[in-house]
This record gives sequence, C-alpha cells and structure tokens, in this order.
Amino acid sequence: MSFALRDPIHDYIRVDDLEAKVLQSRALQRLRSVRQLGLANLVFPGAEHSRFGHVLGAMELAGRVYDSLAEKTPTLLENDARSPQRRNLRLAALLHDIGHAPFSHSSEELFEGGIEHEQMTARILELPDLADLFDGAQELSGEGVGLDPVRRILAGNGDATERLLSQIVSGELDADKMDYLLRDSHYCGVRYGNYDLGRLLETIVALQDPDSGNWALGIEEDGVHAFEALVLARYYMFTQVYFNLTGKVLELHLNEWLKENGVLWPRDAERFLAHDDLSVWSAMRDSTSEHARAILDRDHFVLAFETKEHLTKAERERFTSILETVGQQLEPGEILVSNSAKDPHRLGESGVPVRDADGGIRPMQEVSHFIRYLTRIDRFRVYSRSGRRKEIRALFRGLWPTHPSP
Amino acid sequence: MSFALRDPIHDYIRVDDLEAKVLQSRALQRLRSVRQLGLANLVFPGAEHSRFGHVLGAMELAGRVYDSLAEKTPTLLENDARSPQRRNLRLAALLHDIGHAPFSHSSEELFEGGIEHEQMTARILELPDLADLFDGAQELSGEGVGLDPVRRILAGNGDATERLLSQIVSGELDADKMDYLLRDSHYCGVRYGNYDLGRLLETIVALQDPDSGNWALGIEEDGVHAFEALVLARYYMFTQVYFNLTGKVLELHLNEWLKENGVLWPRDAERFLAHDDLSVWSAMRDSTSEHARAILDRDHFVLAFETKEHLTKAERERFTSILETVGQQLEPGEILVSNSAKDPHRLGESGVPVRDADGGIRPMQEVSHFIRYLTRIDRFRVYSRSGRRKEIRALFRGLWPTHPSP
Amino acid sequence: MSFALRDPIHDYIRVDDLEAKVLQSRALQRLRSVRQLGLANLVFPGAEHSRFGHVLGAMELAGRVYDSLAEKTPTLLENDARSPQRRNLRLAALLHDIGHAPFSHSSEELFEGGIEHEQMTARILELPDLADLFDGAQELSGEGVGLDPVRRILAGNGDATERLLSQIVSGELDADKMDYLLRDSHYCGVRYGNYDLGRLLETIVALQDPDSGNWALGIEEDGVHAFEALVLARYYMFTQVYFNLTGKVLELHLNEWLKENGVLWPRDAERFLAHDDLSVWSAMRDSTSEHARAILDRDHFVLAFETKEHLTKAERERFTSILETVGQQLEPGEILVSNSAKDPHRLGESGVPVRDADGGIRPMQEVSHFIRYLTRIDRFRVYSRSGRRKEIRALFRGLWPTHPSP
Amino acid sequence: MSFALRDPIHDYIRVDDLEAKVLQSRALQRLRSVRQLGLANLVFPGAEHSRFGHVLGAMELAGRVYDSLAEKTPTLLENDARSPQRRNLRLAALLHDIGHAPFSHSSEELFEGGIEHEQMTARILELPDLADLFDGAQELSGEGVGLDPVRRILAGNGDATERLLSQIVSGELDADKMDYLLRDSHYCGVRYGNYDLGRLLETIVALQDPDSGNWALGIEEDGVHAFEALVLARYYMFTQVYFNLTGKVLELHLNEWLKENGVLWPRDAERFLAHDDLSVWSAMRDSTSEHARAILDRDHFVLAFETKEHLTKAERERFTSILETVGQQLEPGEILVSNSAKDPHRLGESGVPVRDADGGIRPMQEVSHFIRYLTRIDRFRVYSRSGRRKEIRALFRGLWPTHPSP
Repeated sequence: MSFALRDPIHDYIRVDDLEAKVLQSRALQRLRSVRQLGLANLVFPGAEHSRFGHVLGAMELAGRVYDSLAEKTPTLLENDARSPQRRNLRLAALLHDIGHAPFSHSSEELFEGGIEHEQMTARILELPDLADLFDGAQELSGEGVGLDPVRRILAGNGDATERLLSQIVSGELDADKMDYLLRDSHYCGVRYGNYDLGRLLETIVALQDPDSGNWALGIEEDGVHAFEALVLARYYMFTQVYFNLTGKVLELHLNEWLKENGVLWPRDAERFLAHDDLSVWSAMRDSTSEHARAILDRDHFVLAFETKEHLTKAERERFTSILETVGQQLEPGEILVSNSAKDPHRLGESGVPVRDADGGIRPMQEVSHFIRYLTRIDRFRVYSRSGRRKEIRALFRGLWPTHPSP
Repeated sequence: MSFALRDPIHDYIRVDDLEAKVLQSRALQRLRSVRQLGLANLVFPGAEHSRFGHVLGAMELAGRVYDSLAEKTPTLLENDARSPQRRNLRLAALLHDIGHAPFSHSSEELFEGGIEHEQMTARILELPDLADLFDGAQELSGEGVGLDPVRRILAGNGDATERLLSQIVSGELDADKMDYLLRDSHYCGVRYGNYDLGRLLETIVALQDPDSGNWALGIEEDGVHAFEALVLARYYMFTQVYFNLTGKVLELHLNEWLKENGVLWPRDAERFLAHDDLSVWSAMRDSTSEHARAILDRDHFVLAFETKEHLTKAERERFTSILETVGQQLEPGEILVSNSAKDPHRLGESGVPVRDADGGIRPMQEVSHFIRYLTRIDRFRVYSRSGRRKEIRALFRGLWPTHPSP
Repeated sequence: MSFALRDPIHDYIRVDDLEAKVLQSRALQRLRSVRQLGLANLVFPGAEHSRFGHVLGAMELAGRVYDSLAEKTPTLLENDARSPQRRNLRLAALLHDIGHAPFSHSSEELFEGGIEHEQMTARILELPDLADLFDGAQELSGEGVGLDPVRRILAGNGDATERLLSQIVSGELDADKMDYLLRDSHYCGVRYGNYDLGRLLETIVALQDPDSGNWALGIEEDGVHAFEALVLARYYMFTQVYFNLTGKVLELHLNEWLKENGVLWPRDAERFLAHDDLSVWSAMRDSTSEHARAILDRDHFVLAFETKEHLTKAERERFTSILETVGQQLEPGEILVSNSAKDPHRLGESGVPVRDADGGIRPMQEVSHFIRYLTRIDRFRVYSRSGRRKEIRALFRGLWPTHPSP
Repeated sequence: MSFALRDPIHDYIRVDDLEAKVLQSRALQRLRSVRQLGLANLVFPGAEHSRFGHVLGAMELAGRVYDSLAEKTPTLLENDARSPQRRNLRLAALLHDIGHAPFSHSSEELFEGGIEHEQMTARILELPDLADLFDGAQELSGEGVGLDPVRRILAGNGDATERLLSQIVSGELDADKMDYLLRDSHYCGVRYGNYDLGRLLETIVALQDPDSGNWALGIEEDGVHAFEALVLARYYMFTQVYFNLTGKVLELHLNEWLKENGVLWPRDAERFLAHDDLSVWSAMRDSTSEHARAILDRDHFVLAFETKEHLTKAERERFTSILETVGQQLEPGEILVSNSAKDPHRLGESGVPVRDADGGIRPMQEVSHFIRYLTRIDRFRVYSRSGRRKEIRALFRGLWPTHPSP
C-alpha cells in the first residue's frame, strides 16, 4: 500500500508506508515551518514555500536518478522499485534537510559551536524519535532497509555502492539541486532554474574509476550541454534570486537582530527542533529593534556600494582592506556588508566525469567550454541607512575607483 | 515612477507609487501571514501561499478587465492606464481581502457578532492608518483618486459607473475568482482551475439595461464557453481542493479548537489586525487539546459517512433530521459534520447577461446548457474517531439507505 | 537497445527496436503528411502538427494506462515493461491511425465504398510491407509479440484480455483521446483540452463483470471528477476547435472540391497510401475552382444562419425539412451546410463503470451529475457567399423564428 | 476593427485591418508551406511548424519592444498603440521573412546569384502585389504608414528613428530571435530556448550615442543576466536543435539532391514565390536518387568523425587541409561534411550597450563575464555511408589525433 501526494513540480509523488511514517515525524513536520528561501518572499511574493515540499521532491528525484542508473548498470544497482538500496536512498533524500535552521540558509551561521546543518541532521537522526519509528515499523521496512544505511548514505561513509548513493543526495549532480532549481523557479515565477531534467536523467550514468574502483556520478557526452544548463540554471538563480540585492540586506538585518538577542541555534538536537521560522517571527514581532523593524516594516538599509560580480583574489584582498579602512571612519552599525563568495559550480579538482561514445572518460572541465570559464561569484555589497548612502558611497568610490559592474 | 513585482501567475505586476505605499501598510502586510487556503497545505503540500500574492493578482486582473471594457465602451470608462476610475478599481481590488480572518475561509464563522469578512474590510478602511496614508500621499494619488471612491467600490454603493467597477471586484465574473482559480491551481499542482483567461478577457463586456440604465458585466456570445469553463473550473476546485475530504476535517478540528479556547475574531478593527495564522499557530502548538493534536500530529477524525454531492431540498431536510436522531445516540463530540452548501455558480435570478452577434441580450442560464443544469454542491460529511468509524457508519446507513455517491 | 524521441507533450517517448522499425515503415511515415486537424491551421495558426506525433503519444499513453492497470490487477496483466501484452498494445496504438484519409477527419466521408478509416487501417495491415517487416524482425519481437495479436487488438475480436487492451486503444477512456486533447491544445494554444492526466492514470482500473466475466476499463470513485474533466475537455475542444465556425466551412469547401474532381480515397490499400495532404494540396493549387480558391485565398462562404448547439430530435427533424424547403428556393451550390451531430461522450447504454470505496460498481451516468446532463452537440450551420448572406439568413429566420443560441 | 489570432506562444495576437490584408497576401500565405526548421521534424517530431506562426510572433514582439522603449523614451517614440512608427515596425516584422527559401535555412545557399534571403525579401516587396495591396488600403493605413517606411526599416537605411526600429527587426536583441527561441522550444519540446522574456522587455532601452547621435538597442544593467540568458538560450538551441547531428546530415542530403537536380531558387521574385517545401517534396518523392531516399527512407549517412565544438583558427585551417588530403583518397560523394561556423552571439565589435544605474554606458562584453568568454561554434562533422564509417573514421583519426570533444 502507498499513497500519492500532489506536487506542483513532479505531479504525483508516491510515498510508501514507511516513508509516510517518516513524513509524520516531528523532524519532517517541522520543515513545514522553515521557508525554503528564508525571507525571499519579501522580494518575490510567490516564494512562500517551505522545505517540506522540497524534501518530497528530492526524494522523488533521487528515486528517478536511481532508476536511470540501475537501468544502465543493473550489476551495481538492482533495477527494481522495491530494492533496499533504492528505498534507503529515498529515505536519505527525504531526511537530508531536517537539520536546517530557521529561514534555511539565511541564518545558518548561528549554529552553536559553528556546526553545519548537515551535522545537525546527523544529530537529529540520533534522537530516539526516528529510531523508535524505524523500530516500530520493521514490518514495513523489510530486509536491508533501515536507519543505519540511511545514516551512512547521508554521512557519505558507507560501502562503495552507498557512497555512490551519497552523491545522489549531495554532490555536483544531486537530486537536491535538481529539485530546488525547478521548485524555487516555480514559486518565484522566474525561468532561470528551468534546465532540461528529462535529458539529464537520460544521460546520467554511474562510472567506475579503473584504479580505485570507486563509483562516481557522471554524464554521457551527449548530455554535457544538459549538465551545463543545470550549472547555469544554478548560476542564474544565485545572481537573480538567492543573492538578490534586497533579499540579501533583509538577511543581514535578520542576522543582526538574532545576534542582538543572543540567539544561537542549540547544539542539542532536542532543543533545536523547537526553533523554526514561526518561533523567530513571534519573537521578532514585538521587538522595537531597528533590525526587526527593517524587516517588518520594510524600512531596511539600502545599497551604498557594490563591487563587480567576480572579484579576483587580489581584488578581494584589496577590497577587504578598504572595508577595514572605511569601517574605522564610521560609527559601529552604520554599514552592513554581504559577500557572496559561494562557488556556483564547486567543480574544483574532482570534476564530473564525462563518458564519450567510445567509452573514454574525461573530466567535465576539459570537455565543457562553459564550465571551464565559469568562475565563482565573489562580490561585496555595502548597505547603509538611506540618509547616509551618498556619503558612504563616496567613501568607497574614493578608494575603489573602478566602475561597479555585474 | 513605479516598480514591478514578479508573480508566478501574471509574470510582472506593475505597482504605481500610491499602490506601493498601500502595499506597505499594516493591513496589507498582515496578509502575508494569512494562508490563502487555510490548512489545505496539510493535504496539498504546495498550497503554502498567502493572500498577499492573491490581492496583487486581483489588482492586476481588475486592471485588465477594466482595459478590456474600456476599449469596447470608451464612453463609459476612460481608455487610459492612468484614469482615476481604473486606479480606484485597482486599489479596491488590492484592499478587498484585508478583512479576512486567520486561515481565510477556514474559520470565518468566528467573527464577533457574526459579521462577514467584507464588513471587517470596511472597518479596517475606517482606521486612521489608511486614511493617513492617503492624506499623506496626495501628490501621488491625483484628482479623483482616493479612499472614498475605493470604499464605494468595495461597498457597491457608488454611482452607476462605480457599481460596474464593484462587479469587477466582487461578482459572478470578478477579478477575485479569475485570480484565485489560476493561483490556487498553480500552488496545489492541479489543473482544475485552468480556464481560458485570454478568451474571457477578449469577450467580457459592459452591458446596459435599457430600462434601468444600470450597467452589468456580461459576455459576448462567442465567449459563453469560456465563461462556462470558468464556472466549471470553480466547480472542480471546490470538489477537489476547497472541499477536500481531509482538508475539511482539519478545518472542523481547527474550529473546535478555537471554540474550546473561546477565540472570536474581534469586532474592533485595531484588535482584529493582531490576529493571523501565526498568532493562532503559536497558541495551538502548546495545546494538549485533542483538536490541536489532530491538526499538529495529523491524528484527525476520519470519514464515517457522506451523502451524495447534490442533495435536493427534501433530501437535505431528511438528512438534517437523521443527524439529529443519530446525535442523540452519541456522546457529545463523537462526530464532526461538514456541509458544503456553497453555490458554485451563484447565478440565481440575475444571471450574467450574454450579448449575441445581433446585439440581443439574454440571461446566461437561457444560453448555456451547462449553467442551466449546474446545481449547487450540497453534501454532508460525518467524521469520527477512527475506532468508532464502523459503528457510526452503520448508524447512518441504517437511516439513510441509499448508496453514497459523488 | 532502444532510443527516445523528444515530444512536446510527454517529454521523452522511448521506442524499442521493433517499434523503431514500424516507425520507419511507409504507413507510419505517411502520417507525417497528414495533418492531425486537417485545415484547422488556417484558423489556429499553430495547429500544423501531423498524425505522426499523435500516434507516438497514443503509444506512450497506452503503455502508461497498461502500467496503471497492471499494478492494480497483476493477475490479469503482467506488471512488466517487456510483457508481450504491453508490447502488442503499444504497437496497436502506434498503428491505429494509419488508415486516416488526407486531412484526417475533414474528408473521411470520401472513402470508396463508404468504408471507415478503421477498416482502411485493417487493410493496410494486410499489405506485405508490415508482414515482411515483422517476419524479418523476429529476433526483436520475442515470444507472443506480432502482427496477429496487434490486429486482434485493433479489431476488438481477441480473447478477454485482448478485448480489454482494445478499449485502451479505442473506447470511452482510450489513450487516443487522452493524447489528442493535450496535443491539440498545445499546438492550437488553447487550454480547453487540459484535463488531469495524472489523476486519471491514478484512478483508472480494470473491472470484471461478475456475470459475463468480461473486463472493462473503469474508474475509481475518487477519479470521477477527473473523468468528467476529460469528457468536458473533449466537449470544449469540439465546440471551440474541432467544430470551429470558420474551420468547418473550409472543410465543406474541401469536400466540394474533392467531389468536383471525382476524388475518392481508394479502397485498395496500396493505392490509398499514395494519398496524403501533400498530394491533395499539389492538385488543388492549380485549380481555378471556386472551392479551391475559397481555401487557398481564404475567400470562403460565411455563416448565414445557425441553430442552437443542442437540437432535440424534433427540432432536428423540423430543421431538416426547413432546409429542404429553402433548398428548393435556391440555385444549386448557393449554400453549404454543416451538422455537428457527434456525440461528445458516447456513453450510451454501456457507460464507464465506477468502483466505489466499498467495491460496488455503478454506471458513470448514475454517479456523475455532469455526464447525465451532457447531451450531444447537434447544430446546423448554413453558409453562403457573403453577398447573399442577408437574404438567406432572412429565409431561415422566417421559417425558424427562435433565437439562435450556442 | 481588428481581430485576434490564437498563438501557442503569445496567447492572443491582435491584428489590425491593414495587417490582416497583408496576412492574406500570397507572400505571407506561402510561409505556411515553409517549415521554420526545415527537416528538423524528422528528428524532433514536434517541429512541424511553419514560418507563418513565427512572423506573427515576431510582429507581436516587435510591438512589445516598441512599447517598452516608448514608455521609457517618449520623446523618441510616440507612446501610442496606433502611432505610425509602431505600425510600420510591426508590418516590417510581419514581412521580414518572406524571402526565405524552401526549408528555411536548410537550403539557403542555393539562391541564384548567391543572394541572401533578406535580398529576396526586398525583391518581393517590389512586386506589384504588395504595392497594390497598400494602395488599395489607404483608408486603413493612415498618415505615415506605408510600404516605403516598411522597406526602409527592413533595409536599415531610414532616418535615425527608423534605424532604431530596424534593430528591433534584425539585430542582436531583435524580436526575431526573441520569438523563434520560445517558439522552436515549444514545438520541439525542449527547454533550451526559454529565456526570461518578461525581464528582457522590462530592461530593454534605447540609448543614444552622445557623439554620433545614433540610437542603439541596449539593456539596463540589471537586465544583463536576462540578456545573457537570451544568448545562452540561442547557444543551446544551436548545439541541441539547429546543429543536431542527424538533422544536419539530412540537410546535407537535401542540398546534394537539389544540386543533382540543378535546382536554384530563382532570382526573379515572381518565379521564386512558386517554390516552397511542398513543391520540393512533390519532386523529391518520385526521385530514386540516393540523396532523396536518404531523406524519405531515413537511410542517411552516419557520423564518421567530428571535431570538437570550438576550433581555433589554426585548428580550423589544419582541419581544412586534412579534409583535402582525405578527400583525395576517396571516391567523389563518399563523404558529406558540415561546418557549423555560425557565431552564436554576433557581438563583434559593436556590442550591445549597457546602461548602469548612474547612467554610464559600457559595452556588454566588458560587463558580462559570460559574453566575454562565449566563442563561436566552429565544428566540422564528416558523414559517410554506414558501411564505410570505420574506415573513414580511421583516416581522420590518423591525421587528427586529438580526442573529439563537444
């Protein structure tokens, strides 16, 4: 038995009985109160969706990636909808975001002890809740399905096959971004995130390194342009939505307000689960802090200065030192500074392997012209109260004379 | 000057400076915390959208309906994007939902004194907030644009032209439902609400009654099928989404919980504005009430019995009396009963007028085969705790032997 | 081995090696030159698609319907993508339209001997081409797959299981209309044909008559509204697209021109295959006939009179006799008359069976309010040269005084 | 008076009475028989659309670009839907493709005298047909609207304002590609061509060169990413659809067949108009030429060798000389060679100007990281009969040892 949930991105998502139980757990239900894009809905009114829909979508796509690989490599992955590998993978995808802080990425630097949300996910998986749930549902899970393999897939420390499954949950070609790009585009009402999912699933492939024996998610040569499109979709979602000019300053105000109030997301998983967007909003509403009002009344700092989109390392260092200089001339709290130094492709040295028609394997960076030239987005933005904008702008312009550019 | 907001339904929605100020008002910003479909997201995970996006969409479509009418009847409505009539209409559409209770329709029977949300809208418009806003923005509003005509359009008590504009905001062919059908479909991920907006806007027309001189929103004969499709879209959204089996019982639990806690939405507009979904959720979270847990833990009553979808008046009376009989055999609180007696077309006696190619005017009910046979949805559903389901089902079956049908 | 074709409706359609060979056959390739909607592209410019895409889509959906049934009734249909039943069904769907005349339905009354296109399909299947193809591809077809079962499925004269498969190809709930509604909407740019495919596939079911043991395609009770939406989608496609006012008169001119030139579609399959849209256009281009020019120069007859959309039997008879009366007062060829007496639902006595939650089975007409009241479209339209329009209109109005209505 | 045509890309396209007459002209109606993507439908079955829909779409988008510019620069362009400038522009867009040869770009090298299709467009505009049409429709055209300004806009030799309008019809940011990217994607069923039209129209702007006084189509700085997305959409449509591996070899066969038969598209406009896809297909059908059968029976040459996607100039020269060497070792006709040396951005020296928030103007190549690194697609593909594939592949591999890559 199973049921199917209606989803705006993938139409029907089927959920089996074990997954349904996990879906009802406190850790999953909490995600209904954690918006996928933090405060972005204050800029893109449609972006009111929570992480709950996203993890369902990630689960669905993890299954589809599995099916595509299993069809091509049945010796590695059992080509069966009920195989334990596939079920563990789907569960891992469903659970992969339970450690997200309120407002998702907006405030994720405020974990006690500086842990990352993936570590919090691991901690929540240690709580009795989910263990009890799996224990009590053994007749639903069947041989080989359980919390242990799920944890190994999430941690990336399983056997060779599980380590391949880990890449489906988190990696350069993962179900996570395959879902969120489509989903965030749908809700924001933009087209940037619409890559060619069908083609990607057609051409994704599991490739084994002849020396190490390790498996990697790769792409067939005639899917390279579909992969590029995925990377570009992500690039544009970053520049247009995730790093949106106004969205970013609202996040800065949020972080300031949280810091003012000494808020840190508890290291303790049990206590952590009590925090979500709702608990923060409730507290913020009564606050008279400038930063709370900036968000609630949309009376936020405005852009005074920004660098171009792709700073070189030298430019970055120079700007950092300018920032320090300017900072000394200003009262504390006069500016808020964002730096979007996320790497939009994360290809680094490893690279997604590409298999050509003759079976040869080469790194993506060698094959793809675009990927080779894609550099990380590294831009600083300086925001101030609107009354001080001109003055502060002038300060930076005096020290950083080149023209700002995208 | 103006700006444009990205919307998933209408792409860009342009907002002029006066509208932007209204958008920043407390009454409008509150709508960000009132979900358009109440608790429906617990059934359709995508349905997390608030009324804020909807009122923007209603404003946009009100303007488009205006343009379509003005092009065909420029003697009545000035065919100009900046005409005061058009601007007042858009403002009215933007403000038409500010009186909605938390969770929109889910709990709207709990207004103090049994007022309707439209009355609350009128009350909020009497608060100093919006009056001050308009007073302070006279250089933006221009001649003939202001809160008074907006109030008249919302109340439906203006002059002949304004009464036509009132129909664009609220009536059988209003911008309200034109927007929400598309919007709710988009977020739920269903297709039921997708009628042919383009065709409708092509064929909508202002028609004058030769005797009374009154203007009515009508449709040209070759738009009749597009109008039918709008009505059917609404019909299916009611049956599939708005009256969803599980969604309805969650609403019943919500109302029970609110009643248990003596919650009524204040008659006083100032105090009313403090209530939204967030304030209710915060209170409900700590509650140990069965009804709160039903919602929070999805441990809700289940369907024990339902009638068919279209009860006749006689059947309705008979079922009401059966309900009473059964009720006497049960402990209080053992069942929850929903009755979806909304009229899906509301055509009643007036009817939308249809203009044929020769200029003759006839009522829709005469022209449209479908509309003539469309009857209101009147169905009772009885829910109980799952352990008591069979027993209670048997009670009803004994008294209402006909087969349940849709 | 297999390949995948890109399709605007179903994204990727996978084609196995045997299907690929059939696709390359003359009978299938000819469909590239038979437009799906005849002359409709002269009214809806986007409607330039041929039957070739449609038969691919019908094949794809036949497979999906099969999968949905097999999942629910594995004892009847083997739940395996490579099962012979499934493969024969897909081949039947792929081949089901090869007997279509040029311009599809527009000229299908001109078959020699008054045969129907389904009979021509059967004849083409008797040609050596396809027999040779299947003979030469035995290593691809495998046990149980071949032209004989395909013919039985198309003819509806197989065993009990095959007769169920026949209904998937042609029936009230067939893959044929599931595909063409979506496809024709996509190309015309209308929304009328957009029903809820996902829901329909979720709720379609094979039901056995306890007495006769026959299997029928039915629907689960909670899919009744999805079925209604399919029927309504078809209804609106008929009224808005397939029976379009201008489209219909162009078809009438086409038929007149074909008759003038003594064109009949050969009864002989071999000769029949030489006829397609291209061969007709080539001949028509040089023609000076008024009917050819009507199409080529868009100088066609115009509507002089039409009845309402749903004539009763008595009204129909009366109008037929009026037609005769008027005809005697006119020169031959002064009017062209269309009558759209197609039944939009074809439910008749059989009806699609509905299975309720308790397993009970009832006919659709009893369960669905809409289906019960849906009557066939029966409307006459009289067209004339534009110069004679008023006069001829007056003639009909004199004899048929009731107001024309949709 | 006017009417509206339904279009799958832009919903309703309104056509005024003069445009309607032009639409009925022989030159426009001929475009119904010229497929937009030549033979691409043999690879992407959905791509059966003709140029007729495209020119309607280009007309619609030209009007929208005009409106966007006029709103921002009303001193240059009259902000009025009926302004002569706007009407001439729309007519120019409607007529801009009438000179296309059969199968659009597939065979455009076969014009007599090596003229380009733009020159043929100019010649057709000199035929009495259109001149007579405009003369006979003076009451519809109104002051300032006519064939002369249309010709100037198409030729790019008008006054300063008209030269700006010329760029809307043909240039780096023209309505032509804005339409065809969306349209070809829709029909092929791919997503590659889906850029952000709304954002582009928001940020497109007319910019005046302070020195020369010339106007250019430019983009505001916050539209740079939308412009990049347009360029990338085009890049991917080239690599995936327009330069499709199989599509290209079919085009090569078509050109061989045309050359075998001595077909050249007449320099004389009157005779040219008799040629369209239909006339070519009719002739090709009876041909026993290997090249005709390659297309009709899909028995075409296969890829024996290809270079990487972006050859440097030196690599290009080297490959050309290898081609010559290999050619001498083969019988004539043993290979067919394609070279896709189209420049996907055509930015060249001019560059689209970008206006930043301070009003400064810089070239796109300086502002956009992507555009700077985007290099033209220059790839050779060598096709042969399948029996000779290996041998010929080996020949090239011997001389061009580097690995083939995309």
